[in-house]
Amino acid sequence: MKRRFYLNKKDLEETVGIYFNELKDYFLKDDIEYIKAREGINRITALPIIANENVPSYNSSAMDGIAVISKRTYGANESNPVILEKGKDFEYINTGYPINNPYDSVIMIENIEIIDDGHVQIRNSVYPYKDVRKVGEDICKGEMVFPRYHTLTSSDISFLMMAKVFEIPVIRKMKILLIPTGNEIVKPEELTEEFQIPETNSLMIKNYLEHFNAVVDINEILPDDINIIKNIIAEKIKEYDLILLNAGSSAGSKDFTYHAINDLGKVIIHGINIKPGKPAVLGIVNEKPVIGLPGFPVSCNIIMEDIVKPLILNKTKYEIYYDNEIIEGISAKRIHSSITEKEYLRVGVGKVGENYVAIPLKRGAANISAISKQDGIVYIEKGIEVVEDGEEVSIHLKRSKKLIDNNILIIGSHDLLLYLLADFVKKYDKNINIVSANVGSLGGILSIAKGYSHLAGMHLLDPETGEYNISYIKEYMDDFKLMNLSYREQGFIVQKGNPKKIKDFEDLTKDGVRYINRQKTAGTRILLDYNLDKKGISPKEIHGYSDEEYSHVNLALKIKKDMADVGLGIRAAANIYNLDFVPVALERYDLLIQDSFLNDKRFELIMNIITSNEFKEEAEKLGGYILKDTGKIWEVVK
Amino acid sequence: MKRRFYLNKKDLEETVGIYFNELKDYFLKDDIEYIKAREGINRITALPIIANENVPSYNSSAMDGIAVISKRTYGANESNPVILEKGKDFEYINTGYPINNPYDSVIMIENIEIIDDGHVQIRNSVYPYKDVRKVGEDICKGEMVFPRYHTLTSSDISFLMMAKVFEIPVIRKMKILLIPTGNEIVKPEELTEEFQIPETNSLMIKNYLEHFNAVVDINEILPDDINIIKNIIAEKIKEYDLILLNAGSSAGSKDFTYHAINDLGKVIIHGINIKPGKPAVLGIVNEKPVIGLPGFPVSCNIIMEDIVKPLILNKTKYEIYYDNEIIEGISAKRIHSSITEKEYLRVGVGKVGENYVAIPLKRGAANISAISKQDGIVYIEKGIEVVEDGEEVSIHLKRSKKLIDNNILIIGSHDLLLYLLADFVKKYDKNINIVSANVGSLGGILSIAKGYSHLAGMHLLDPETGEYNISYIKEYMDDFKLMNLSYREQGFIVQKGNPKKIKDFEDLTKDGVRYINRQKTAGTRILLDYNLDKKGISPKEIHGYSDEEYSHVNLALKIKKDMADVGLGIRAAANIYNLDFVPVALERYDLLIQDSFLNDKRFELIMNIITSNEFKEEAEKLGGYILKDTGKIWEVVK
Repeated sequence: MKRRFYLNKKDLEETVGIYFNELKDYFLKDDIEYIKAREGINRITALPIIANENVPSYNSSAMDGIAVISKRTYGANESNPVILEKGKDFEYINTGYPINNPYDSVIMIENIEIIDDGHVQIRNSVYPYKDVRKVGEDICKGEMVFPRYHTLTSSDISFLMMAKVFEIPVIRKMKILLIPTGNEIVKPEELTEEFQIPETNSLMIKNYLEHFNAVVDINEILPDDINIIKNIIAEKIKEYDLILLNAGSSAGSKDFTYHAINDLGKVIIHGINIKPGKPAVLGIVNEKPVIGLPGFPVSCNIIMEDIVKPLILNKTKYEIYYDNEIIEGISAKRIHSSITEKEYLRVGVGKVGENYVAIPLKRGAANISAISKQDGIVYIEKGIEVVEDGEEVSIHLKRSKKLIDNNILIIGSHDLLLYLLADFVKKYDKNINIVSANVGSLGGILSIAKGYSHLAGMHLLDPETGEYNISYIKEYMDDFKLMNLSYREQGFIVQKGNPKKIKDFEDLTKDGVRYINRQKTAGTRILLDYNLDKKGISPKEIHGYSDEEYSHVNLALKIKKDMADVGLGIRAAANIYNLDFVPVALERYDLLIQDSFLNDKRFELIMNIITSNEFKEEAEKLGGYILKDTGKIWEVVK
Repeated sequence: MKRRFYLNKKDLEETVGIYFNELKDYFLKDDIEYIKAREGINRITALPIIANENVPSYNSSAMDGIAVISKRTYGANESNPVILEKGKDFEYINTGYPINNPYDSVIMIENIEIIDDGHVQIRNSVYPYKDVRKVGEDICKGEMVFPRYHTLTSSDISFLMMAKVFEIPVIRKMKILLIPTGNEIVKPEELTEEFQIPETNSLMIKNYLEHFNAVVDINEILPDDINIIKNIIAEKIKEYDLILLNAGSSAGSKDFTYHAINDLGKVIIHGINIKPGKPAVLGIVNEKPVIGLPGFPVSCNIIMEDIVKPLILNKTKYEIYYDNEIIEGISAKRIHSSITEKEYLRVGVGKVGENYVAIPLKRGAANISAISKQDGIVYIEKGIEVVEDGEEVSIHLKRSKKLIDNNILIIGSHDLLLYLLADFVKKYDKNINIVSANVGSLGGILSIAKGYSHLAGMHLLDPETGEYNISYIKEYMDDFKLMNLSYREQGFIVQKGNPKKIKDFEDLTKDGVRYINRQKTAGTRILLDYNLDKKGISPKEIHGYSDEEYSHVNLALKIKKDMADVGLGIRAAANIYNLDFVPVALERYDLLIQDSFLNDKRFELIMNIITSNEFKEEAEKLGGYILKDTGKIWEVVK
């Protein structure tokens, strides 16, 4: 066998670039398997996961105390206690237990005075749903629990259980075959002669790689015989996703790795400009990677860390979590906190311009989604009552900063296409997550103006001009760019068969019609108020006008659960629960763009996604979306 | 059952302090088991691990090329090539293969010109042991591979195999029993009725904790019955190291955890000033921890992360590695690097005063110890030839910065007591590692003067005064404090039975006596040179004067392997290999102390350790140590 010398050694980054580019198709193809969700720790979702159940699945008590009828508590105060009768005005209730009709609110145990077995006295009134966890508070049936390519943590598994997702599609673990070669090497425990070489690299390689969602089988030790080595590679590459040879990657007279790969397939790289680590062979056989690792352990370790590990992460989409870094950022919201307790505020984090922005996630002790979505925790120390909007905060990261730097923040009006977008973005770049928050259309404009988000969704009709969004944005910003995501149908979401016969806004005032509203900053709320005003209907005439939900889906769920008869919302939300829908308007839903995000590669990716046929088709399946102007941009300059 | 309210809620840090203090004895007792080293990934050493074999175990080639007799290459240069004959002057050799007598050096394949099958031509001479990995280069038999409480990584396992350590004492995995309680909770897959509560926390808890070297068994779900709960705790606490109850930790009418623990043992804390997470019960039954976790998942998660996880890490001594942080530091050494390759330089790191100091570890591709010992990697980019001593470098951390902040750097003269000290320090504080480097006594003084280390070992005799160390230090520093570690016997390390009859320095010049020397900065070398000078012996008269080793143990190993007959070194090194020892001097070995380290709690710990009887007894067992002045301090002021 002729000795080889390294020709054209390349730098490591260049090497990885060239090699991974040759493996492009290999990386694109996902190998999917279905497993039990309860066994899914550290596995990676292969497709978006949709909730099969509302979390929580019924209205439940958030406290130990008594379930009450809120109306019966009105008027109670320090000097005028109200006495409640058990079985008539209240029932004792423990945390997590259901709130059943006619009860609609909870008073915590610390705030009641027990008079006798049948009576208690209270000195504070409560509003409806006080200390009640509303059905679907954490997530609604039909909503996306995780996009594809999400690495499942311990709390994620619990979250799936709560959402009644018991089987999940995941990326199959990578199957790696490690072939030790060399006439003189033997298992270390079996060393008998003085000059035998202990085969110790296999253990290092196996233990190291199995940490990253791979299964490593160790072949028996092969002799320095090129035909034997070739035969094994040719046979095993059918069954394995990656073959590693160790050693024989160098230029010695018995280093057959180069020749074996070259005969069976193609050597892409031999020799890298690093020290240690130079003698590595990177090849492709049967469109799969075959790598010759250097024999010296430190060299081997470097190739493992800087080439094999990234290869596995690229193929399996595995994310490694860290939790030891603290960064400085700003709060995107004003936060009230308890003066007597230290609060753990879970936040999504994104880098907008030069700032890290912390977006508070759901704060309730029961909302496990906040753990699943967290990028970090902001500790609000005891004694601090308020963290101001824009105030500097220390963020204790729970994911690696490098990945958080890729996060895209979308804050504003809620829309189901944002879930779809989140999944598509992962599909094309597993390292990008979308962090979204529903604060309504007006909240979205402010989040862009203050530099708190990259994009903001909105659908605000200017009744005077018939134009959407632009006149509202102008009140806060002189120059801006706005991009259309979709048109969408707004209308009355009603029970199947529309039993209350809701056809127009006047019908909302009818006797026995229970309305469910959106919050004040929502564009849908503005649409309602505009129509009421136009028709001279007073909000007081509408039963339930003051009951608010924060998303289309939560609103639809309330109707599905017969807690209301009608609400204004989008058709796609009605479709999730198989409810009926009475169209009212076709509105324009746009994304306002942060200046510094315009020339960002991630923005380019989003543009490519939303204008693709693949995305449009999936969007239209949701119902009520018309994507004729998607990607169209309006530029406003002073 | 009476309802309870939280009395005297405490802050989290205070809570952990009080609770862990009550568990002091529990934490102190290690549960040890012996396992196969090859199955030791992520396990924690329970005792110091000693090498059973030298690594490498014989002189071996570091390159593919030819093994030569170095003398026969002398005189070769560009214009005067030397022709070598196969079988007489050279043999072909592959990386890792043994160098056998009479060969003593290697020429890499790229540097030879093949004339015919039996002859090659070279144009460069080589010195002895060029490109030879010397026996024991990475570690010597008898040296400590790891102190106790070291969490084993993938490369550590390979290192153990190389050092022929096949069975190891490790901390037994913690056995945890998780007991879900509650009448209404059921396995999520078995939900049938609307208001049942899915038992989803168990999965979160089990998956989360098993990541930290624990085994979590899940009990069947228990009803809300205090007697049943008490019976299970009382029975299972005999077998488990920790019991977790979930939920029932709150103050509701069915929250029995408090009462169950109180009846069986002692509740230390009920209620913490955090949000979420308030309703936790921390108790002790049978001197073991029993914890009531809150039922809401976010609350439960916080108690797990901030109380149960630290409890497990304290009990098992498990260290979690990270690898994503980059810090700025300074190089403690001048480093030459290849201009054509990017070098991965593994470093130990410590914080001395305000600076992070990077101590280069062994650089050879074969030296796996460098991976085991690394705190981080400094990348020396292609094109950079030299990193100056004191130059700023970026350190890519491989261990958490918090732990690295605890590292104690001891740079200077080599002594076996430093291994002992490293293990004792871990024993009393698992979070403190000693990073040591052998640069000789003079190198040690410089490392303190330049701010590169916390402590420096030295044993430099001033022949004029008979005093040790002080006059040498004064050349570099005006004010300093010096502490005695031990007196130790220096002498001639010789073959068993002293066949060459070495009794004094004159005997070193005898015919047929092969000497092995220490490097120029070593105090032992200075001791030799001083005596030769006094006796009028020229170094030229000593065969092997220019052969150098960097530690007492490597020197002794060379004699053991019959590669030399005698060397000057400490008795403890002779004892390791059962060699004979001829005493020459009793010298004082002191530690010079960095100013900023004097008031450090870690210095206090070291003082307490070295002055303890336990340490002294262990030290004296090594042989040749006299600890009569240990801990004595000399203060020198200008």
